[in-house]
Amino acid sequence: MTSLRPLIALMTDFGLQDPYVGTMKGVIAGISPHTTVIDLTHGISPQNVMQGAIILGSSAAYFPDGTIFVAVVDPGVGTKRKAIALLTEKQTFIAPDNGLLSLIMDKQKVMACHTITNTSCMLPSRSRTFHGRDIFSPAAAHLAGGLAPAKLGEICNPDSCIRITFPENTTTDGGCSWEGTVLYSDIYGNLVTSITAELVEGREKAECVRLKDGRKVPLHETYGNVAEGEALAYTGSSGFLEIAIRNGNAANVLGLKTGDRITLLVKRRHRNER
Amino acid sequence: MTSLRPLIALMTDFGLQDPYVGTMKGVIAGISPHTTVIDLTHGISPQNVMQGAIILGSSAAYFPDGTIFVAVVDPGVGTKRKAIALLTEKQTFIAPDNGLLSLIMDKQKVMACHTITNTSCMLPSRSRTFHGRDIFSPAAAHLAGGLAPAKLGEICNPDSCIRITFPENTTTDGGCSWEGTVLYSDIYGNLVTSITAELVEGREKAECVRLKDGRKVPLHETYGNVAEGEALAYTGSSGFLEIAIRNGNAANVLGLKTGDRITLLVKRRHRNER
Amino acid sequence: MTSLRPLIALMTDFGLQDPYVGTMKGVIAGISPHTTVIDLTHGISPQNVMQGAIILGSSAAYFPDGTIFVAVVDPGVGTKRKAIALLTEKQTFIAPDNGLLSLIMDKQKVMACHTITNTSCMLPSRSRTFHGRDIFSPAAAHLAGGLAPAKLGEICNPDSCIRITFPENTTTDGGCSWEGTVLYSDIYGNLVTSITAELVEGREKAECVRLKDGRKVPLHETYGNVAEGEALAYTGSSGFLEIAIRNGNAANVLGLKTGDRITLLVKRRHRNER
Repeated sequence: MTSLRPLIALMTDFGLQDPYVGTMKGVIAGISPHTTVIDLTHGISPQNVMQGAIILGSSAAYFPDGTIFVAVVDPGVGTKRKAIALLTEKQTFIAPDNGLLSLIMDKQKVMACHTITNTSCMLPSRSRTFHGRDIFSPAAAHLAGGLAPAKLGEICNPDSCIRITFPENTTTDGGCSWEGTVLYSDIYGNLVTSITAELVEGREKAECVRLKDGRKVPLHETYGNVAEGEALAYTGSSGFLEIAIRNGNAANVLGLKTGDRITLLVKRRHRNER
Repeated sequence: MTSLRPLIALMTDFGLQDPYVGTMKGVIAGISPHTTVIDLTHGISPQNVMQGAIILGSSAAYFPDGTIFVAVVDPGVGTKRKAIALLTEKQTFIAPDNGLLSLIMDKQKVMACHTITNTSCMLPSRSRTFHGRDIFSPAAAHLAGGLAPAKLGEICNPDSCIRITFPENTTTDGGCSWEGTVLYSDIYGNLVTSITAELVEGREKAECVRLKDGRKVPLHETYGNVAEGEALAYTGSSGFLEIAIRNGNAANVLGLKTGDRITLLVKRRHRNER
Repeated sequence: MTSLRPLIALMTDFGLQDPYVGTMKGVIAGISPHTTVIDLTHGISPQNVMQGAIILGSSAAYFPDGTIFVAVVDPGVGTKRKAIALLTEKQTFIAPDNGLLSLIMDKQKVMACHTITNTSCMLPSRSRTFHGRDIFSPAAAHLAGGLAPAKLGEICNPDSCIRITFPENTTTDGGCSWEGTVLYSDIYGNLVTSITAELVEGREKAECVRLKDGRKVPLHETYGNVAEGEALAYTGSSGFLEIAIRNGNAANVLGLKTGDRITLLVKRRHRNER
């Protein structure tokens, strides 16, 4: 249905305690009154661009084609970092150019990218600290209202945009293990690692995760497979291997934090296994 | 107005920190783009089906006729528990069959119940852990878009659905008291008990609540009737007798928790009282 | 566009843990089904009318003309305090008459004020504790649906409405300093003071803030200008001078709380400066 106004989805690290998110919605409503706005989440850890990139990358596919995402995790606000609008085959993403769209660029076919420089698409008065309200939300609202993306600013090469460098996973032991890294822990202490679902579910049969202190954590499909207080590893909705404790805080209990190394132990499949 | 699209109201124990609720809304928007979605609350204590049942039971009447509720407090996700759509004279309720709709069944006239088994009303790929996104939200969105409830799956007998067993309140002392139980405490430490408003406001005149340690807590209409730090009992918006401390945490201060016994002391009214 | 239904914006101290805000939205949807509802914030500190007044006063301008605000920070609920609907040249504000609209009255041109007394614009059954649901939300929804404000109740003189008395800022030292007061600290420990942006950016050149213990905090434009853990003062989105610590809790670290005195040190500009 071409008459359908696209929806706007918001993802930030602003939390909901303050009026920041509400103010962004007020600005959007002023520019594009009939647009539906959905909160993807405002609970990204403050300034954790990598966490934001992973959550956006693993969530966007659940939103309709044409959705305009406003993603603001922006430690560089007020500096010279660019503001960009990335157009993929499926959706549009408004964000600071700091790597927040790294996984989207991997997962969706990129069609074009524009820097957002046209001040007539921004609030007339702009702060140095709140571009979510002054620049990103207005840009999204104008697009939702029908503005051509080219009006936001000059086209730029998507390959020139900043990409997050994920820690490399290296195979060791003649292919019997993968070395990875803890990327972040969420508010519940669940640990998201750099080991991708592809590695876990790949040709080798994953057996368990070995922590830096030698402890081994078994792989399971769901929490229900272990008792309360026990650790497990699983491929989470993030698309990465996660380590958790059923009804517990894995980061605290296991003493793991961002940057710590973990090892996925795998067993080569025999040729007669599928 | 028959052209009015019904709204969807969400109640879960997911919190708002994570992208779970946002993802559910993305899924709904993809299936039924013009449907308004309201968050009743996502702050049910994790896996507290009884609390969810009480809050849904006491809140649904404030929503318009035709509202489609998606209620997800679902410790049994991934097991064989059924997913159901309960149709009452007034509204529709999509939920796991685990007692979450117990109070709705008491308060609203049930017209029909369907199990949700038709995979064409679900997301094509379904996880074992997030039926809120994969099954419950899509079902609600399809209903909001006009799907006949019978298309969700086979009709089932509402009497076969799981009901929460509330602790029984027993009268003692020749009718001069009611023994009840603490059902749960909310995030502020307010204690919701099994004593119904009907018992408190019934034929007998309620006097006070006696705790297990003998302390007595007076009944009042509002917080304003006691000083800061003092305890009071009142019939709350839950429809049950609640025990609280003005600007304090009753669970901590009074040392009460789920399952503890409390006693409502009543005074028989004389015949010439109304 | 006259056919455009006004939106409703909500600001309360209810938080999002409980079903209170969701219930208000259910009530609004029942009265005015197609009205968009935006949460400005529900994170006002409990019963902090001054904080609510400042946040509403500094946020409302970002919302479209015609927006109907429902503002509920209401320590006096259940007492004889009035409920009012304030109409300005730009927007409408539904609130308890307790000072919550003080800054709106300063910043927007007031056109009329009505007390809300017409019970046909309220829920039929009204509690003594939840006027947000029973009185304020229904009033806003009826206005959004086209009700003339005069139908809410009798007109009242806006000058008779309660205004917050902000602590007075006094100039000392022959104009070389301004004495002010800490108004409140937000959830992050950022301290909002009574020193207005006008004083900081006025004719005198502000130099730093002196705390009660003699420590001096430098003025900066943004957080980025100080190192992690260092204190700074700036004119925040509140419109007042704020004191913060980069990635820290200023209230705790500096030992400041509501009511504490602070001093803005200024330097007279020479005549040849602008």
